[in-house]
Amino acid sequence: MITKLAILGSTGSIGTQTLDIVRKFPDRLAIVGLATGHVTPLFSQQIAEFEPQLAFTADNLTTKNCQSLEEISAHPDVDIVVIAIPGYAALTSVMAAAHAGKIIALANKESLVCAGEIILAEVAKSGATLRPVDSEHSAIWQCLSGESTPPVRLILTASGGPFRRYNQTELTAVSAEDALRHPSWRMGRKVTIDSATLLNKGLEVIEAHHLFQMPYDKIDIVIHPQSIVHSLVEFEDGSLKAQLSSPDMRLPIQYALSYPHRWNNDNLPKLDLAKTGRLDFEPPDHTRFPCLALALEAGKKGGTYPAVLCAAGECAVDLFLAGQLRFTDIAPVIESGLAAHSPIMRPFIADVIAASHWARDAVKKSVQKERRYC
Amino acid sequence: MITKLAILGSTGSIGTQTLDIVRKFPDRLAIVGLATGHVTPLFSQQIAEFEPQLAFTADNLTTKNCQSLEEISAHPDVDIVVIAIPGYAALTSVMAAAHAGKIIALANKESLVCAGEIILAEVAKSGATLRPVDSEHSAIWQCLSGESTPPVRLILTASGGPFRRYNQTELTAVSAEDALRHPSWRMGRKVTIDSATLLNKGLEVIEAHHLFQMPYDKIDIVIHPQSIVHSLVEFEDGSLKAQLSSPDMRLPIQYALSYPHRWNNDNLPKLDLAKTGRLDFEPPDHTRFPCLALALEAGKKGGTYPAVLCAAGECAVDLFLAGQLRFTDIAPVIESGLAAHSPIMRPFIADVIAASHWARDAVKKSVQKERRYC
Repeated sequence: MITKLAILGSTGSIGTQTLDIVRKFPDRLAIVGLATGHVTPLFSQQIAEFEPQLAFTADNLTTKNCQSLEEISAHPDVDIVVIAIPGYAALTSVMAAAHAGKIIALANKESLVCAGEIILAEVAKSGATLRPVDSEHSAIWQCLSGESTPPVRLILTASGGPFRRYNQTELTAVSAEDALRHPSWRMGRKVTIDSATLLNKGLEVIEAHHLFQMPYDKIDIVIHPQSIVHSLVEFEDGSLKAQLSSPDMRLPIQYALSYPHRWNNDNLPKLDLAKTGRLDFEPPDHTRFPCLALALEAGKKGGTYPAVLCAAGECAVDLFLAGQLRFTDIAPVIESGLAAHSPIMRPFIADVIAASHWARDAVKKSVQKERRYC
Repeated sequence: MITKLAILGSTGSIGTQTLDIVRKFPDRLAIVGLATGHVTPLFSQQIAEFEPQLAFTADNLTTKNCQSLEEISAHPDVDIVVIAIPGYAALTSVMAAAHAGKIIALANKESLVCAGEIILAEVAKSGATLRPVDSEHSAIWQCLSGESTPPVRLILTASGGPFRRYNQTELTAVSAEDALRHPSWRMGRKVTIDSATLLNKGLEVIEAHHLFQMPYDKIDIVIHPQSIVHSLVEFEDGSLKAQLSSPDMRLPIQYALSYPHRWNNDNLPKLDLAKTGRLDFEPPDHTRFPCLALALEAGKKGGTYPAVLCAAGECAVDLFLAGQLRFTDIAPVIESGLAAHSPIMRPFIADVIAASHWARDAVKKSVQKERRYC
């Protein structure tokens, strides 16, 4: 039996790596739909190679048998929707897939972070399934497999980013170029910066809270610079399970497609622990990386706060990449966005989207007003 | 529902720790039978405390409602038989439990090592279940839980013992006292010495081969001095799962009793990875620890060779503890026992027992003949 995929965000980092897996298993996976933001030469190549029944670009320059991302998400011929669009733009596609009862391979963080309760309610109603693609959540998912007793703690590992050992002065001087060089993972630009500020890990805690229905005080973070242990789960007898591999996003992507089975893929790197030699663990430093605490606080407060966190974070990173904010200004910009927000505590999707728009505007205005680096 | 246990070897290290678990969960576990080698004050205390329906000592000084270890093993009132007798003496009890279709919590290595195929055939016939109690095999068992694709590799961790960094000269001078001080595990004398020679790890590979039906070339050993990662399993997508905890035998004992559930036991230590800080891994050194290769070779050859390995190993350790062999003589003594053996390749239990007797005699004679240290 061939599993039929739609990939939303096929030209990005997760999208192209998903297509690598599809190429490797032509008798198990087929592409039914491809979508991305803009028509690019890469997207045209993908269309030529996979000849999908459905294709769409958000700039409306490609529309093959469909008129929107949501239409692909919900299409009856699609078994698994791979959500590989970055940012909160993925939200409506995730909701459409959830409503249609699809298997959703979710690489997008922001949708769950901003609207976790809404999405999970829709998933519960329709019988849809969420399969995490993030390496940390995939690790937790793998570790929970076969356990009949719920876990007492989730432990997300974090590489600590390239500036793990930087002091405050060094952090202030970090350039966009420095921050885009991640020590262990090949990822998109936004998530690479978020890894360096640890905002990413905060978003992942919120995501884990929703995906695994764990209270925030039972989700820990441990810095693990080698990125070999992708996360751990603790059980009530004191036993922990961990999932390990060489860092390569194709593994969690493939697992989200092959589940409950595993497929032999010689393109994926093998891990030799004796060669690795050493795995280190240390607590995160909240003083030098204040984005982490901001994210956890926004998560705990709930309502539209996580949406503001995401949007303010996206905007701050854009400004940092454009040279308009210093690395150490990212956290204060997010913080003032959260402080200025009037939340809606049980939001609908429209409220989440409105809060996101508000947050982007608020951040832009405050940065322009202060004319910090414009 | 209360699970009814019989513990064979209740006064040893595993036996007493099993009783600690029973004390902790009086509404889940009950003692139906207790047995040990000799009447001792401890055994009398245990009888007084747990008032078992069945009791037996191999010296025949205690016989309460039964006449043998095998009778307890097979008794209809027993749900789980905990086999905590050391050495190949456990063999007939394991066979009786297997024949009677019991759940067998197996802490004894030698029975599986010497007669793995015979025991597994009996287990398959009767519908009995083997649950490993060794921390390594328990870890593998836990990591395989919920997986629908068989593993491609088992990776057993080994502490490396107290002499991991010793050179040949230092190893020659090791005393029984030195060897009995294990860096991380509280265990019986025999297994502590076997941990120091790495013979124990060789026996565990043979045990894993039988328990998990894995070919020898797919079972690896990695030295991990902290004894936090108890073993790992590799799957064909390159993903590994590991089970971790602070080293405490009560955890794998409890899991063998609570399976498929896990029980909250505040007597068990919790692990804090950030405090642990560092986990190391290195390949084993076969030159300084030749017992490992001897064990793997005996396992691969099969037939009565593993029985000779076990018995020669037991005898050599006895002689070492009695001051009649040097630490570095343990391997050559086992090696010459294996070399002198005329194997039976598809043995019955009687052949296994005969080979064991032969090996003990052969080792004793050869050591006496050479009058090395008598």
